[in-house]
Amino acid sequence: MNRLEKLKDAIKKANINGYLTTNVKSIYYLTGFMDISEATLFLITPVNGDAILLVQPLSYDAANEKAEGCTVKNIGFRGKILNKIVNEIRRSQMKSVVFDSLSTSMYLKLVQEMKEVEFKQDQDILMSLRRQKDEREIAFLIEAAKLADFGAEAGMEAIKPRIHEYEVAAEIEYAMRRRGSEGVAFETVVASGPRSAYPHGVCSDRIINEGELVVLDLGATYLGYRSDITRTAVVGKPTIRQKKIFDVVLKAQEEAFKSIHAKVRASDVDGVARKIITNEGFSDFFIHSLGHGVGLDIHEAPTLSPKSKEILLEGDVVTDEPGIYIPGFGGVRIEDTVLIHKNHGEKLTKTPYSF
Amino acid sequence: MNRLEKLKDAIKKANINGYLTTNVKSIYYLTGFMDISEATLFLITPVNGDAILLVQPLSYDAANEKAEGCTVKNIGFRGKILNKIVNEIRRSQMKSVVFDSLSTSMYLKLVQEMKEVEFKQDQDILMSLRRQKDEREIAFLIEAAKLADFGAEAGMEAIKPRIHEYEVAAEIEYAMRRRGSEGVAFETVVASGPRSAYPHGVCSDRIINEGELVVLDLGATYLGYRSDITRTAVVGKPTIRQKKIFDVVLKAQEEAFKSIHAKVRASDVDGVARKIITNEGFSDFFIHSLGHGVGLDIHEAPTLSPKSKEILLEGDVVTDEPGIYIPGFGGVRIEDTVLIHKNHGEKLTKTPYSF
Repeated sequence: MNRLEKLKDAIKKANINGYLTTNVKSIYYLTGFMDISEATLFLITPVNGDAILLVQPLSYDAANEKAEGCTVKNIGFRGKILNKIVNEIRRSQMKSVVFDSLSTSMYLKLVQEMKEVEFKQDQDILMSLRRQKDEREIAFLIEAAKLADFGAEAGMEAIKPRIHEYEVAAEIEYAMRRRGSEGVAFETVVASGPRSAYPHGVCSDRIINEGELVVLDLGATYLGYRSDITRTAVVGKPTIRQKKIFDVVLKAQEEAFKSIHAKVRASDVDGVARKIITNEGFSDFFIHSLGHGVGLDIHEAPTLSPKSKEILLEGDVVTDEPGIYIPGFGGVRIEDTVLIHKNHGEKLTKTPYSF
Repeated sequence: MNRLEKLKDAIKKANINGYLTTNVKSIYYLTGFMDISEATLFLITPVNGDAILLVQPLSYDAANEKAEGCTVKNIGFRGKILNKIVNEIRRSQMKSVVFDSLSTSMYLKLVQEMKEVEFKQDQDILMSLRRQKDEREIAFLIEAAKLADFGAEAGMEAIKPRIHEYEVAAEIEYAMRRRGSEGVAFETVVASGPRSAYPHGVCSDRIINEGELVVLDLGATYLGYRSDITRTAVVGKPTIRQKKIFDVVLKAQEEAFKSIHAKVRASDVDGVARKIITNEGFSDFFIHSLGHGVGLDIHEAPTLSPKSKEILLEGDVVTDEPGIYIPGFGGVRIEDTVLIHKNHGEKLTKTPYSF
């Protein structure tokens, strides 16, 4: 069953007549057409009948060539977008429409124009479909992970005293890009010294010094699909405390990985890592969730956190990334992208851990 | 007068009690704090009284350190965001609030909760302020343009037969990144052969051949500010037709540049380039506007197009980028980022034109 049919099934179950998405990645997921213009596009999927993809004039030819399972229509000049959407909704006689994201002004115009239709915002219906990856998607995610391994290895090799953080990022991104990455999966993190204690440290013009911790967090993109890997290095020989923290994080990461398989609770996997870190006295310094889903978005369902209500499913692709962050001292995070199988997890990123 | 005071003046003139922005770049512009987490943040600026910046827990310390001219408050746990916003609006006794962007669900909750307050969407008030750059911003834009020149030169040098488009992009991005660019200003375009006829061709795994046109469109980012440059090369010796098209585009670009200064109509500058291209018989193949503003966003006000109603102002930074795109044959685009002075324009990007 193709993805648009799956969406129709899902909205039928939710007792809705149609789904309106403006999310470029969801439209790529559903139709195979990835729009590269900045302009808005709309996919209207009635529970019965063909999906309609409304695109801007400059995207029309590409959409016609690539989009499958839907009819492509040209929005034409500005100002007629509302009319086109209204026409399609009326034509399919929808009484209830769920949308993922609309500007407030567009929402208000639609509600005003079609008082007979119930409009409701919901992103979960579509994101639930995107969560479990099929064979084709897994092949793309494996390729994205391979590219990330090239980046991580280049980054680890580049780290040396007196180099700027951004120079390390340059080596990481160059290694991925020249092998075919479409661009970074998210802003590369090269966080050294005290900055390694910031979980979202991106990268600065700081100069890296002997003896410092350096956290590298990076990812590549392949045919829209992303990867996510973190490695932590020390410049030179680690101190006993640095080594201790590294070992605790690595143990938490590896034990959490061993606990991963379909049907386990996401909160339980988080718990495995959190318990190890807590038992070693670092519970106050593991200040984020263990992981998140990865796909066309770098953060998607499911979330691996203490509060998560989700159960892992076959085909989920998630990160396993515990960390310990000590303000003023530094931080260690170790992360792999992991594919969930029936009875085990499979690491898609494979760069050796350091220390 | 600082930027928050300018915003207060603007909303006072518009007869509004307060402005609510969720735009990360606008918040950086107004306060100096650039949030790097993905979570939403809110800046509430009452026409009288101090601006309040509501941030997520993980951003609180950084916001406190960096944000100027406003009081930083911690949103705390999820679900209380609405209450915090409502409290601030009530505390300042606003009766009318303009916002730039809110999710439909947040908008509906706010309207429901505060029936006594009028909420209206408007992005122009703030984008008009961001349009004319001050001295400090111009220094950052000059640096971003210098980085783009390094990228453009590296790209031109990398072009040779049998190289993949993405390999050229790798050289471009590496040259910028290792000199301190925070990342690409937008997705790098390396469009070769027939693909050069797509104005937004990004880059593919196509192999570049002898005799083909190659359009490079790229930019760097420095302290949040972006640059934008396009150069077109030919692999080997150009044909007469390639040379002809190149010469027409270059003439259009240079004559448009000469016509640029404060107080000229944006549509007139577009007209200068369009007339040259039209007179040479290529009017059907110049299928986009001449240019756009550049700043914290890669596309911002003003727009240089036939329909633009805008007048250029001192401190505007805009692109001048005519192009001719012939389906099946290929395309040529030449672009510089230009700063508008009282009596002339100043090219910030300086890479030599080819051919």
